[in-house]
Amino acid sequence: MEKTMERIKAIQLQDRVIEAETAASWIQDGMTLGLSGFTRAGDAKAVPLALVKRAETESFKVNVFTGASLGSDIDKLFAEAGIVGKRLPFQADPAMRKKINEGKMLFVDDHLSQTAEWIKADVISPIDFAIVEALGITEDGLIIPTTSVGNSALFVQYAKHVIVEINTAQPELFEGIHDIYDTGKQGERVPIPLTHVDDRIGVPGMPVDLEKVRGIVFTHQADSPSTIDPADEETDRIADHLLEFLRSEVRAGRLTNKLAPLQSGIGTVANSVLHGMLDSEFDGLEVYSEVLQDAVFELIDAGKVRFASASSITLSEGKMKQVFGNFGRYRDKLILRPQEISNHPEIIRRLGLISINTALEFDIYGNVNSTHVSGTKMMNGIGGSGDFARNARLSIFVTKSIAKGGRISSVVPFVTHVDHTEHDVDIVVTEQGYADLRGLAPRERATLIIEQCVHPMYKEKMRAYYAEALARGGQTPHMLEKAFSWHAKLAQTGTML
Amino acid sequence: MEKTMERIKAIQLQDRVIEAETAASWIQDGMTLGLSGFTRAGDAKAVPLALVKRAETESFKVNVFTGASLGSDIDKLFAEAGIVGKRLPFQADPAMRKKINEGKMLFVDDHLSQTAEWIKADVISPIDFAIVEALGITEDGLIIPTTSVGNSALFVQYAKHVIVEINTAQPELFEGIHDIYDTGKQGERVPIPLTHVDDRIGVPGMPVDLEKVRGIVFTHQADSPSTIDPADEETDRIADHLLEFLRSEVRAGRLTNKLAPLQSGIGTVANSVLHGMLDSEFDGLEVYSEVLQDAVFELIDAGKVRFASASSITLSEGKMKQVFGNFGRYRDKLILRPQEISNHPEIIRRLGLISINTALEFDIYGNVNSTHVSGTKMMNGIGGSGDFARNARLSIFVTKSIAKGGRISSVVPFVTHVDHTEHDVDIVVTEQGYADLRGLAPRERATLIIEQCVHPMYKEKMRAYYAEALARGGQTPHMLEKAFSWHAKLAQTGTML
Repeated sequence: MEKTMERIKAIQLQDRVIEAETAASWIQDGMTLGLSGFTRAGDAKAVPLALVKRAETESFKVNVFTGASLGSDIDKLFAEAGIVGKRLPFQADPAMRKKINEGKMLFVDDHLSQTAEWIKADVISPIDFAIVEALGITEDGLIIPTTSVGNSALFVQYAKHVIVEINTAQPELFEGIHDIYDTGKQGERVPIPLTHVDDRIGVPGMPVDLEKVRGIVFTHQADSPSTIDPADEETDRIADHLLEFLRSEVRAGRLTNKLAPLQSGIGTVANSVLHGMLDSEFDGLEVYSEVLQDAVFELIDAGKVRFASASSITLSEGKMKQVFGNFGRYRDKLILRPQEISNHPEIIRRLGLISINTALEFDIYGNVNSTHVSGTKMMNGIGGSGDFARNARLSIFVTKSIAKGGRISSVVPFVTHVDHTEHDVDIVVTEQGYADLRGLAPRERATLIIEQCVHPMYKEKMRAYYAEALARGGQTPHMLEKAFSWHAKLAQTGTML
Repeated sequence: MEKTMERIKAIQLQDRVIEAETAASWIQDGMTLGLSGFTRAGDAKAVPLALVKRAETESFKVNVFTGASLGSDIDKLFAEAGIVGKRLPFQADPAMRKKINEGKMLFVDDHLSQTAEWIKADVISPIDFAIVEALGITEDGLIIPTTSVGNSALFVQYAKHVIVEINTAQPELFEGIHDIYDTGKQGERVPIPLTHVDDRIGVPGMPVDLEKVRGIVFTHQADSPSTIDPADEETDRIADHLLEFLRSEVRAGRLTNKLAPLQSGIGTVANSVLHGMLDSEFDGLEVYSEVLQDAVFELIDAGKVRFASASSITLSEGKMKQVFGNFGRYRDKLILRPQEISNHPEIIRRLGLISINTALEFDIYGNVNSTHVSGTKMMNGIGGSGDFARNARLSIFVTKSIAKGGRISSVVPFVTHVDHTEHDVDIVVTEQGYADLRGLAPRERATLIIEQCVHPMYKEKMRAYYAEALARGGQTPHMLEKAFSWHAKLAQTGTML
């Protein structure tokens, strides 16, 4: 215990150590919780699990606000226990997804940079309890986060009460890699003084009014590992096409081999694309992203990435052991920031990021659906993809051209839900090829996308749709009565073919 | 002539005065022109018209890049002459719209802040000739714009050749109200040092390499007046609902009676909404917009608006006479900026604007179509609405609930084109009422929009659609096969009813 009590350097807090069950007992029906956790990393673990336990004998609902997705099966257990009223801004759990789509809980799917604005402007429910994971608390009252920052600093600042989970299983060497900056409220702001990915602009922990700290819980539990699949033939080809595009940008004099700060969304395809840079000529790279996955550390190991900034680190089981066990090697190459800063439009446009995100489907004019299966069923949420796509130097969306063994085409006549409009999508890439849409009118886009990105199984069918639509005219030729016919066929017959 | 030659204070340019026809003769087939002009204001007039004249006897095409829409019937005459290959980023002319929708010219519809990025990054065709209207040229080689800035400074900077039209009919007192700032290229940028609407951060004219100035043409022709309709009963009710919403924000402590810097899109409804503030308690207002229409000057006259920043001034005929004839009264209350700055995401989010734009249609989940009639036919373009809606403190869209005497409902089950996603739309307003969508899940949004905003003629029909969709479940309940059925009925029978 003594060793762990050293983690609470603000000694006036040392008598506030409690059990998770005690903390959970303070939470009342209808309250709003602000939980740490971003892409499974750095989530508060013990108190949420104690709350699930309480639900076995008690009936209540709480609103759950986070950075992004949680690990430790918390979203799953929350969903199964039926204790969530409203969840925002992101989740990625199959059990929770099911409840959302059944209408048994409400999910507000929003840009990850936006939650901060809503909380500061007092637009959404005030946070009753911030429950945040930490390495410790400093003498001057800074809560040191662990593997993610997310919205935690904001929750701590705006919550009525704060519960800290000090997780002794997280690497102590993470102390010092965080950079917490408060933009302040709209209308009273100054420019965010960040002009390079490695700029430090804030303080190394989350400032807290010590009076608000109701309890401190000790835990010892590793983060959940990431669930990304390994690269396969299709993701390798997507990576190849993307690298080919980047090379053409270098040849055109628009980029050098250092490229520009890279952002890469969560998931298998985006990770594979970064992985593909390992054997490339690109060098001296910088990353300015929301999450750092395995590939970024492989690129650091290979000397390809010189610095990486994000809001969380989420690794596979093996990579986590290697990186966290040797963290001294990485810590001067990393900064973790609040998601308001990692995803801030001001910074994204200033730095001119190359942004790579995954599409669920895109259409012949370059509109992207990132969230809704057949327009109605939520997958995970838009996450930060919109923050980046709108303001990046290059807004790139990747996806395999087909899914479910070819029964689904990921390129469709008309997306069933729009998360990123034609105005915000520069390059689309499938394993078939890439289409550079910049500066193109819709009719130019359609031809390029059909010929470059559609799977051969669907190419004739798509050409036929477009030819028939084109005959009717318009800036963006469509046949509204057939726009969703591929999805309708899928629903009826199990295949779009 | 002597008096006009005084306008060219860089004396080495005085021998470059030419006729418009001479300038037009330099333009070759396939060239790209960067023309001044933003919402009909400050457009280059003589050289474009001379180019149209040339087309009577010659066959050629040029690409036409501007700030936004042109006046002086230039887009109309360009379209009718068939001399435009590609047009970007905005137009608002019926004849050009027709050619676009017939596929006889290409139109790239993009965020008004984005053209600057494309030109700087050398992504779109390089500008062969910048043709910009000016009040004059200073000794040290600054071209002083007239009633708009738009993309002119950028065109002048990046074009191979520059032609200046000095328009002696524009009020000389405009000199000094412009503030030209260059953000530089992505990756080399510093924060834009603008924290208040009245901050001056640049120089009073557009820097030009004097070597590039091929010719100077003198003109004497007023801008085209705006074409907005007067307020009517419905727009008054929209304004009333919007003021009611703003009052509720003041009561909730989120705003004061000074509100926050206002942005208001081009057009009748947006102008009427601002007009509605004349008799309100709101005071000490600031405007940070892309265009200043009549209502802003009425609010200045009434002492309600203390300062207004924009990229252009576009007034009705009567208001233009009054304002331009007494410009000394206004000039210390105004700044005109490049559209890259007036519409910059960094500034919009920092200042926390209240953004009011017009929707063509919106759907029950808050997605907005600003551009495409029945999903295919272009009206004008997205303009700056996306720049503002994404980053504003309050993103408000207004529209009358019905059009064409009720044959069209502006609130539909599923918009036929998405320019602003559910993630970027906070408040929707019709003459029926307003729906505050902030922090709401899709199912909450649908009920609110249907009950608050849909016209009584369509309310039962919309409730029926939603109830049937809801029975199928999903985060965003829809029936894809019926999503566009209202539009299909309109196409077949002439009415959605």
